[in-house]
Amino acid sequence: MSSLPNFNIHAPDQALAPALRHKIDRKTKPLGALGQLEALALQIGLIQQSLTPSLRRPSLTIFAADHGLARAGVSAYPQEVTPQMVHNFLAGGAATNIFARQHGFALQVVDAGVNSDFAAGLPLRHEKIAHGTANCLEGPAMSHEQVLHCLETGRRIAHEEIAKGSNVLAFGEMGIGNTSCATLLAHFLATLPIAPCTGRGTGLDDAGLLRKVAILEAVAARVGPGPHQLLDVLAEVGGFEVVMMTGAMLGAAEKRAVIIVDGFIASAALLAAMHIAPAVREYAVFGHRSQEGGHPLLLAHLNATPLLQLDLRLGEGSGAVLAWPLLQAACGFLNEMASFEEAGVCGEAAQ
Amino acid sequence: MSSLPNFNIHAPDQALAPALRHKIDRKTKPLGALGQLEALALQIGLIQQSLTPSLRRPSLTIFAADHGLARAGVSAYPQEVTPQMVHNFLAGGAATNIFARQHGFALQVVDAGVNSDFAAGLPLRHEKIAHGTANCLEGPAMSHEQVLHCLETGRRIAHEEIAKGSNVLAFGEMGIGNTSCATLLAHFLATLPIAPCTGRGTGLDDAGLLRKVAILEAVAARVGPGPHQLLDVLAEVGGFEVVMMTGAMLGAAEKRAVIIVDGFIASAALLAAMHIAPAVREYAVFGHRSQEGGHPLLLAHLNATPLLQLDLRLGEGSGAVLAWPLLQAACGFLNEMASFEEAGVCGEAAQ
Repeated sequence: MSSLPNFNIHAPDQALAPALRHKIDRKTKPLGALGQLEALALQIGLIQQSLTPSLRRPSLTIFAADHGLARAGVSAYPQEVTPQMVHNFLAGGAATNIFARQHGFALQVVDAGVNSDFAAGLPLRHEKIAHGTANCLEGPAMSHEQVLHCLETGRRIAHEEIAKGSNVLAFGEMGIGNTSCATLLAHFLATLPIAPCTGRGTGLDDAGLLRKVAILEAVAARVGPGPHQLLDVLAEVGGFEVVMMTGAMLGAAEKRAVIIVDGFIASAALLAAMHIAPAVREYAVFGHRSQEGGHPLLLAHLNATPLLQLDLRLGEGSGAVLAWPLLQAACGFLNEMASFEEAGVCGEAAQ
Repeated sequence: MSSLPNFNIHAPDQALAPALRHKIDRKTKPLGALGQLEALALQIGLIQQSLTPSLRRPSLTIFAADHGLARAGVSAYPQEVTPQMVHNFLAGGAATNIFARQHGFALQVVDAGVNSDFAAGLPLRHEKIAHGTANCLEGPAMSHEQVLHCLETGRRIAHEEIAKGSNVLAFGEMGIGNTSCATLLAHFLATLPIAPCTGRGTGLDDAGLLRKVAILEAVAARVGPGPHQLLDVLAEVGGFEVVMMTGAMLGAAEKRAVIIVDGFIASAALLAAMHIAPAVREYAVFGHRSQEGGHPLLLAHLNATPLLQLDLRLGEGSGAVLAWPLLQAACGFLNEMASFEEAGVCGEAAQ
């Protein structure tokens, strides 16, 4: 019987928090006037255990894979779109490429298990587990060994990015059918009900949405009500790109890097990671709130306040990358802004 | 009897809208998946009358002035903070300086009427109307001539920024007491009730907030229920920095520049501008929703969806500057992202 690997993750020491708060509060602004940026500066300072945190070489890794469940009709788009979009990423033409270039992210694309063969010479990281998962309507999407393989591969990828100089890692995904995975993970790992957690994905119409809910309910019925072990849940619903992202998030937290969480699917990957090592949550910054059905519910479960709320529902890490300037702004004000004392500004309220 | 100046503002021609929408919809993403960024790309494309809009030399002008009403006790901070913060801006130590540097904004600070004398050699634009407005609890804050002077000065400042190459103008303000101005403008120009539109500004406690509401109600009673002419309203409640910003917004729209609106006070300045030339609204992008009391109500009145919601309540243009990367992202995806045809991605839903 296989078991989950150990991840060596420690929550940031809170001893520095009062000094960080004091530094934030003495800046030339009314108390709390920078809102969420103040909470963000505190979090990043704690992660880096520094009163002068700095962000280096932001990195975006996009994990791509296919899902056997897509054949059941849970998506508006055919499975062929997954490899087509991988080629689009490699050519630099997808939305996330544009945003990653704008913000200077190092970007890599990982074939975690796309149901298509890519030429060996492509600038693609070849980590294919299989040609798509099995259809989880009929049985487990993945074997236990595949789950462990995904986790270890994700960890290795994160460690390599950090070895290249990154201390902020964003993760994206591409995989027709993977909002279904995310809904099932939210169901089994956060006990969220399936119907309100099921969204239109890439654009299902009303009938398609009803069909998707029925299919996901059928998967849940096949798996049974639980409680289940995490390893079993991941094997039952997959998928390769989601579990690899889970491993990468855990690997990032092992090395005390900031994780920028994208939308619904990335949040589900984090949820799984928290079942392995709860402290990973402390390293997570939430880039945006997606329009996709289950995301607001899952964010509430995670007690997360995302930085952006732009009605995005694209994935690919796009919402994580778009949030990046706010992380820079948080470090920027903490490091560069004058204090009341430095600026000779009266810092005491008159009332 | 003086009258308001004419501003030559035309709403953008909508004839280009279908072509812009088509271009957005053929990008390699599900329909609508970029949410607010798609609406933003459409708006900027229409403003520039271009399928390939580009943003140049983003500019932030901070208008600073004092308010006679501050002596009545509407703010948690003493009036001396206004010139102190001007010096902080000039030294580069305020939050807005940090964000403006991060995003490459050209920044200028305008003394529109601070109750303090600045040395002539400072890198400050000297446009002082007077040493603060009169106390509007006792009489009009400004004369009609001062209102007109502010509008013309603001227009000139905007035109000069555009002549320097800017086509995106953000405006900020600094002035102890100016959230009171904004509340009174929202009351008289958008018929919003005073109490729910009154916020804590720089940090009033509960008693201070009640006192502020009572003072603003007294000003409103003195001015009377109206309807009033816009020129009278601006003269009655002021202030120099707010009305100068109104003129600058109108000047920006005359030259078809994008206006990035900051928080509550900037939104009140836009509201005033819309009473002079309603089409100015079409040029306005809303940077963020402030935590300050009246802002959500005023945004609803303006039918505006801000880009950021970070619980900021600082002013200085900080929320406008922080939204800048999203404007860049909107133009970036419109200009650089591949279409389904270009990328060879299946663009038709399978359902």
